[in-house]
Amino acid sequence: MKHLEENTLSVSTIYNGKIIDVEVQDVSLPNGSTSKREIVKHPGAVAIIAVTKENKLLLVRQYRKALEKVIVEIPAGKLEKGEDPKESAVRELQEETGYESGSLRSIGSFYTSPGFADELIHLYVAEDLTFSKQQLDEDEFLDVLEVSLEEAEQMVLNEEIHDAKTVYAVQYLQLQQLLTK
Amino acid sequence: MKHLEENTLSVSTIYNGKIIDVEVQDVSLPNGSTSKREIVKHPGAVAIIAVTKENKLLLVRQYRKALEKVIVEIPAGKLEKGEDPKESAVRELQEETGYESGSLRSIGSFYTSPGFADELIHLYVAEDLTFSKQQLDEDEFLDVLEVSLEEAEQMVLNEEIHDAKTVYAVQYLQLQQLLTK
Repeated sequence: MKHLEENTLSVSTIYNGKIIDVEVQDVSLPNGSTSKREIVKHPGAVAIIAVTKENKLLLVRQYRKALEKVIVEIPAGKLEKGEDPKESAVRELQEETGYESGSLRSIGSFYTSPGFADELIHLYVAEDLTFSKQQLDEDEFLDVLEVSLEEAEQMVLNEEIHDAKTVYAVQYLQLQQLLTK
Repeated sequence: MKHLEENTLSVSTIYNGKIIDVEVQDVSLPNGSTSKREIVKHPGAVAIIAVTKENKLLLVRQYRKALEKVIVEIPAGKLEKGEDPKESAVRELQEETGYESGSLRSIGSFYTSPGFADELIHLYVAEDLTFSKQQLDEDEFLDVLEVSLEEAEQMVLNEEIHDAKTVYAVQYLQLQQLLTK
């Protein structure tokens, strides 16, 4: 893929933060000319499609400062340094919703914004859920919702569900329902 | 939703770039304590699920500097300042693939990374395609692929397709195929 590759000429670190780092790279393009790339480094994340024994999808409603509004998402969180994604999924599901899963399986991963960020989300399906105890981070405030697939589809239509991983999750469940009919 | 809301106490601008701006906000949390939020501002983007008359999905293969690798995505691009998303979709599809669409319809939008960024992707389905002429930006290098839905599903499995909007697009087409059977 040499005809597509960009090579790093220099890197300027703009910011080293608590969650993200930001850098600007001078790059050489395949035709020999140069350009700049603005890049956000992120530790990666996990997200969990958790379905209760009553066939309800677990969602969390929280305020997103980047959007200046409340949206509804599947349970998710950043990877801690060196943390295995599956362990992170177990931890985040329990911290945010209070549920533990007897059956947690990976269904793949995706980059959220490859044009400017390296964030990779690892996706899991959690079933065989039992409730133990919610343990939120000290700067985390959220409501847990349990909704049917039909309610979740409606929340996508009215944009209460409005983020990539959650819209994907609802579509994933719709597809599974049709495939197992 | 007052019990979830975070209020801005102060904003520090870290970076004003060509594509992204970065700021750190001091915020007050619902319980009265304070925290910091690192936020990336992005102009938003469009992405197009374009299906040819031969029932092939149009994909573009390109190098993503943030990932340091080549991945395959549906045609997409940033919104220009003040640009209508639908006009942007027409423009990006033509620039990247050379195709014009006789039928372009919105199928919604989603935030890609609400935890740290405000990027919103507007999604379109483009059909009734006719080829005119590819016109890439001067710093843009990509290959156009035309693949069957089965090939696209395989590319998701082997992670050649590995980003949120494109994984969503493949799943969208799978779902539509089942719903219209």
